[in-house]
Amino acid sequence: MNLESTMQVSDADEYLQRTFQSPASIKAGNLIRLWMEDVGLKTWVDKMGNVHGRTEGINPSEKALLIGSHLDTVIDAGKFDGSLGIVCALSALKVLNMTNRMGRLRRPVEIIAFSDEEGVRFQSTFLGSAAIAGVLPASALHVHDKSGVTVQDALRENSIETTEENLLELKYDPESVWGYIEVHIEQGPVLETIGLPLGSVKGIAGQTRLKVTVRGSQGHAGTVPMNMRQDPMVAAAEIIVLLEGLCKQPEQYLSYDGECRASEVQSLSGSLVCTVGEISSWPSASNVIPGQVTFTVDVRAIDDMGREAVLYELSKRMRQICDRRSVFCKIDRKHDANAVVCDKELSSQLSSAAYAALQRIKGEVAIDVPALMSGAGQDAMAISHLTKVGMLFVRCRGGISHSPAEHVLDDDVWASSTAVLAFLETALL
Amino acid sequence: MNLESTMQVSDADEYLQRTFQSPASIKAGNLIRLWMEDVGLKTWVDKMGNVHGRTEGINPSEKALLIGSHLDTVIDAGKFDGSLGIVCALSALKVLNMTNRMGRLRRPVEIIAFSDEEGVRFQSTFLGSAAIAGVLPASALHVHDKSGVTVQDALRENSIETTEENLLELKYDPESVWGYIEVHIEQGPVLETIGLPLGSVKGIAGQTRLKVTVRGSQGHAGTVPMNMRQDPMVAAAEIIVLLEGLCKQPEQYLSYDGECRASEVQSLSGSLVCTVGEISSWPSASNVIPGQVTFTVDVRAIDDMGREAVLYELSKRMRQICDRRSVFCKIDRKHDANAVVCDKELSSQLSSAAYAALQRIKGEVAIDVPALMSGAGQDAMAISHLTKVGMLFVRCRGGISHSPAEHVLDDDVWASSTAVLAFLETALL
Repeated sequence: MNLESTMQVSDADEYLQRTFQSPASIKAGNLIRLWMEDVGLKTWVDKMGNVHGRTEGINPSEKALLIGSHLDTVIDAGKFDGSLGIVCALSALKVLNMTNRMGRLRRPVEIIAFSDEEGVRFQSTFLGSAAIAGVLPASALHVHDKSGVTVQDALRENSIETTEENLLELKYDPESVWGYIEVHIEQGPVLETIGLPLGSVKGIAGQTRLKVTVRGSQGHAGTVPMNMRQDPMVAAAEIIVLLEGLCKQPEQYLSYDGECRASEVQSLSGSLVCTVGEISSWPSASNVIPGQVTFTVDVRAIDDMGREAVLYELSKRMRQICDRRSVFCKIDRKHDANAVVCDKELSSQLSSAAYAALQRIKGEVAIDVPALMSGAGQDAMAISHLTKVGMLFVRCRGGISHSPAEHVLDDDVWASSTAVLAFLETALL
Repeated sequence: MNLESTMQVSDADEYLQRTFQSPASIKAGNLIRLWMEDVGLKTWVDKMGNVHGRTEGINPSEKALLIGSHLDTVIDAGKFDGSLGIVCALSALKVLNMTNRMGRLRRPVEIIAFSDEEGVRFQSTFLGSAAIAGVLPASALHVHDKSGVTVQDALRENSIETTEENLLELKYDPESVWGYIEVHIEQGPVLETIGLPLGSVKGIAGQTRLKVTVRGSQGHAGTVPMNMRQDPMVAAAEIIVLLEGLCKQPEQYLSYDGECRASEVQSLSGSLVCTVGEISSWPSASNVIPGQVTFTVDVRAIDDMGREAVLYELSKRMRQICDRRSVFCKIDRKHDANAVVCDKELSSQLSSAAYAALQRIKGEVAIDVPALMSGAGQDAMAISHLTKVGMLFVRCRGGISHSPAEHVLDDDVWASSTAVLAFLETALL
């Protein structure tokens, strides 16, 4: 089995792209399914296009361990994002199978390659894992892509007939599931900075996405004196600088007595990230004072109350800036997702497994496996509505992801599958 | 003659647009030419498409007074920008003609409707007036528009064959010209704030246009901790706020002893304007820390040394910001034009004429006609290379220009042509 090549199956010639139910997604899913069968798993594709491979272990009626990650990619993606988690799990089970230990697993183990995490085609979030967790609304079937094809159509094109009723049936019975683990590349620079291939994940940040619109008085760049301007560009710039300050030092405005406990402030300080990724001005001419500037704000934190406090403070101080500058400011709240806290016991077991894997590969390991926050959304976020979740992060070069420059060292791939193996050996054998 | 309707001749149905040698430009030029003839002027169209109307007065060998403004417009323009100056001059001469005084003018008067000031079609500056001033490079003939048509082609399409040699011949002999005056809408809010229809122009600001590129480290909005970011968006925002501060209070960093005299600082403080009109980020996604942010900077001031001092300070402090943030900053200087100082005597005569006009229309006038800076570029800028120049500004509603909302009160149009008449009566009769 050549996992490396599967990870590169693409809809495009020049770069990597696999979107929900695209030809490359189907092809990659079929390959994964073949390899699942090669490992000795029973396989099927469900009504949302997720690819499943399951071994029952010694007791098919026991609650199952689910191991998952996503098969889809962004556009011009790296090959590790998503795929690595599936590959790791397959490799670990392959070792158990080859050493005749798969049949001795104390509970069923099911690998799921989720059909949609990136949401590129339908601007969706977690079509695959949310369906299994039972948190995908029936309306999701009727969302359409840019060419007018709905989720239901896209499935039908691949001979999957899915009704709203079918969608309800996809939900797993929580009583049938023991827990969920996921291995994913970190997509950030922390593990590389620490110098370790693996880290456990303590939680997945909650997220709020805003669209901020600042409207001022459009004018000729040469003729309106500085003190007569209502310039939305400078107001936006001031707000962006403010936002950075608020997110770098939340302790400066979150009080210890009132809104926030000291521990919350500390946890917030470590995890809070704020980003302005898009900005545009209207009419966008070098010799015109803009009439309007819009920008996006992405705020993430492990602490939901803290995130709200930051947003409240941002909103308050932003209005002060806008009032002082006599410009009109509007905040549209476009998206909200609460944080997910990973299960303490699962995380501890995953940490131990990671430590054991590093010892196996490197011999002595001087430092503990760190516990990181996931700033990126993950399938585990959706699955947390179904069962307890735990995650391992894998170091990636330069913290780069969503880019063809995304890279994981061969040794680190090896370490991650060894960690899954160690986890299965300890927890399930 | 219906000047109002000429001002609205457009290439588009829904909005006003007349670009260099477009059908609407030719049509408007022909109408203007008819009206020039109606006023008793000898008319011709030159090899750069400028429309001329001249009366010789009592002594054709005397140096001529030129009165001009531009016929072309921006896209979705207001009808007063440019046209008003031509209309005023025509109206004033019409009165002289009707009262049989035109033949008694002490020197020739020539109205010129310039073919290109806005530069929309060829991204040019002053094709018409620069040719007459002799400062248009021969290469300008070969600049092409978006569809590949050159300036030479565009003229040829209207049966004007213009060689590089012809271009040289367009230059007026400075010995044949006494001076140049121009009436133009203010395009800013100062006259409206003061509450007067007219102001004289003391000078036209020099201008520098920069493109600033800030490059940082692109990353996932959720996974790169705040203290590990090299975020070009926040750096750009900090620079934009800095720029505003530098332009609002140049006295804070221009020293009285060294670089700048006190009077220069004072003049600079009053005239300095800085604008960021365009900004964009790459890759421009709400969940990605940008890898690059670019923006434009437009700096204008009546004092060239002062403008350079501001640019030097901006560059110095910007590099400090970029170094502190570990991002790469690049400044490209895209355009430079030195300031033009209007002729003191002409300006004084125009002020007196404006005052006289306001008295004629309003009776008592309580305040002096103010002397403004022109932040916008003007044909007078090009013509200043040929002869002394003077300008009158006309109040426009809300300071708005380059917009269909551009508006000048009927009374103010009347005041501006009365001022030109008063100038001609005083200076040339």
